[in-house]
Amino acid sequence: MKKGNVLVGQSGGPTAVINSSLAGVFKTAMDRGFHKVYGMRYGIQGFLDEQYVDLSDYIKNELDLELLKRTPSAFLGTCRFKLPAIHEDKEIYERIFELLQKMDIEVFVYIGGNDSMDTIKKLSDYAILTGATQRFIGCPKTIDNDLALTDHTPGYGSAAKYIGTSTKEIIRDCLGFSYKKKNVTIIEVMGRNAGWLTGATALSKGEDCDGPDMIYLPEVVFDVEKFTNQVERLLKKKDVVVVAVSEGIKNKEGTYICQLTAGSDSTDAFGHIQMTGTASYLANYIHEKLGCKTRAVEFSTLQRAASHLASRIDVNEAFMVGGAAIKAADEGTSGVMVVIDRLSDDPYQSSTGVYDVHRIANGEKFVPREWINKEGNYVTNEFISYVKPLIQGDYAPMLVDGLPRHLTMNATGYKDVYGK
Amino acid sequence: MKKGNVLVGQSGGPTAVINSSLAGVFKTAMDRGFHKVYGMRYGIQGFLDEQYVDLSDYIKNELDLELLKRTPSAFLGTCRFKLPAIHEDKEIYERIFELLQKMDIEVFVYIGGNDSMDTIKKLSDYAILTGATQRFIGCPKTIDNDLALTDHTPGYGSAAKYIGTSTKEIIRDCLGFSYKKKNVTIIEVMGRNAGWLTGATALSKGEDCDGPDMIYLPEVVFDVEKFTNQVERLLKKKDVVVVAVSEGIKNKEGTYICQLTAGSDSTDAFGHIQMTGTASYLANYIHEKLGCKTRAVEFSTLQRAASHLASRIDVNEAFMVGGAAIKAADEGTSGVMVVIDRLSDDPYQSSTGVYDVHRIANGEKFVPREWINKEGNYVTNEFISYVKPLIQGDYAPMLVDGLPRHLTMNATGYKDVYGK
Repeated sequence: MKKGNVLVGQSGGPTAVINSSLAGVFKTAMDRGFHKVYGMRYGIQGFLDEQYVDLSDYIKNELDLELLKRTPSAFLGTCRFKLPAIHEDKEIYERIFELLQKMDIEVFVYIGGNDSMDTIKKLSDYAILTGATQRFIGCPKTIDNDLALTDHTPGYGSAAKYIGTSTKEIIRDCLGFSYKKKNVTIIEVMGRNAGWLTGATALSKGEDCDGPDMIYLPEVVFDVEKFTNQVERLLKKKDVVVVAVSEGIKNKEGTYICQLTAGSDSTDAFGHIQMTGTASYLANYIHEKLGCKTRAVEFSTLQRAASHLASRIDVNEAFMVGGAAIKAADEGTSGVMVVIDRLSDDPYQSSTGVYDVHRIANGEKFVPREWINKEGNYVTNEFISYVKPLIQGDYAPMLVDGLPRHLTMNATGYKDVYGK
Repeated sequence: MKKGNVLVGQSGGPTAVINSSLAGVFKTAMDRGFHKVYGMRYGIQGFLDEQYVDLSDYIKNELDLELLKRTPSAFLGTCRFKLPAIHEDKEIYERIFELLQKMDIEVFVYIGGNDSMDTIKKLSDYAILTGATQRFIGCPKTIDNDLALTDHTPGYGSAAKYIGTSTKEIIRDCLGFSYKKKNVTIIEVMGRNAGWLTGATALSKGEDCDGPDMIYLPEVVFDVEKFTNQVERLLKKKDVVVVAVSEGIKNKEGTYICQLTAGSDSTDAFGHIQMTGTASYLANYIHEKLGCKTRAVEFSTLQRAASHLASRIDVNEAFMVGGAAIKAADEGTSGVMVVIDRLSDDPYQSSTGVYDVHRIANGEKFVPREWINKEGNYVTNEFISYVKPLIQGDYAPMLVDGLPRHLTMNATGYKDVYGK
């Protein structure tokens, strides 16, 4: 029987390896005899405007595929767009399924995080309600690693590797420049509610580096006064103090530390508070209280875009879940998210499975309290054992003229303005 | 004739390759039959406290040497310590030369920037005045690339490579996440008075990336209003605007933009103003004026510490100038700085020379006005042709357990506090 087409989209915050999943979807779909692989531009939001491309126009050979695996951010563009409940707005569903039918789509793959799995759930529910035959598969993606049921998410390992490496380089920088001067550096790491990324700063600890002095995850209530006292105590013993904090730490009143700075409470399309400024608030606070030199470092979007420092395990697993999504759909499955199961830690082995997306959507996975020390200011060895296999190996960028080359579709078409 | 010992120190802000110069000094000194290579801890400041080490205690083999070349920040530690004029405080010079004699030092190498070359000048002047026979050689080092007479400085190429790569990854991130939303990203790059680093953001421009929309160097007066109008005009044509600014841009009144934010005018030991917050000031300003979403990204100390992304040309040249310093001293030269001469652009070739340190000290090298476009908001192709050869090739980190391994002397000796 002749196979139809595949439609794939990317959603939510970009990662260093989300395009490796896209590459996996494309390659497996081609290998399994699907006719075309269409890519939604800017996720479901762009698709509703009939914005999509034929991926074979861009991925013409194995080299393109390898470049795509090394390209950060979303090749297709993403959106933050939440589908309404089916009973609230049937029209939007009718519109989507009309387009799917028109394009002869058999398989719909959405690569994203919690919010994207909600999209898969609703679309597959609608298909069941209406007897539509398209299959809907979710592909996990988020640097935050906060998706339930999967051992970890593609994107997390590379972000963790970047965070561990950069923390180590920053600590080295601080130590090299510290004679007879006390200085405190506060590193701010992404992770609104889950501390997986912030905990990864502990990866810098090893034979050649002491790691950060303290690490604060959003899972534990943050006490500014207690923190200040701890820094003061540390400064009596050593000149250089480096602390890692999550952007999402809150005090016991439930107020984000970053909100203690005036004018920082804008929200995004999902009602999430925009986070930034935690490190700079604490650096100013410590400077005022203790008088020492302080510095705030925010890893900012660099931590999710640094494909030049991607983990090989992560790139390969991202590719694998993309392929597994097509395989599952090809075997008739729908309404599931592909998950990664850890088979063994040492040697590290993993495989893919699938879970009913109803069990996954909107459930956040936090760092277990027992993986954080009693004082609430460091991660335990269990945490390190969990993350270490995920940062192994590199996926060397292809350097052209000294910089990593990416695969792009020349998104802006904008050139030669301002004497460029 | 039996040779004496070498004393080497590192000074000023660390770079990704300052230790490669240290490795060059060590190796060439050993190869040329010097007895011992001592390293000052924390530059001349630590040395005055008799803090030094025998480098052969740490560099035991070729592997250690290779690790040292890959270790960011200053292996020996640095200081910011300016020697007084000789007539102001003879005692400090007497103390230094007494130590040099006691340690049988024949050659004194100081790896640093403008301020460090001042140290070499004063010490070699004092040697001439007193008939001391030690030779004093300066080894250039600074990410800022603001040293006169040398074509460029070791440290600049790797910082430029990091800045170009990260800018490209940030632009990609912005583009992937922009559907029906206008957003402006302001990237802040180091460089107090010279725009060499900020200009390197233009390296991201190429076949697969449009590069930043505008680039503002400190060499040109910055006009906040004009800048806002240009951003507004760009936003009419495109959704994603990315701008790079130097931390040191000033308005026509001569006020640093970062000082327009309240409470940011602390100074360092040399009376330099501490810079930070330029991007965040402009991001807030644009957000208020134009209402669009804005983001400030500071490369912070990451840009000088990212040895994981070092340029091979830079690592090798840093090693080469370290070796050339020893060679010059061994041949009887003193009171000079080693410089890099560019022999050819394509294929790129360079060699070392030496210049009288009196001609170099305290003179800053700026980006020539003709390498900045007429509007003052981008660099020209001449700038790109200058910097491109310096970022070529990689010097792959040695990954141990997923992270780059460094050579260290376990500077803190501080362990097992707070449940680590």
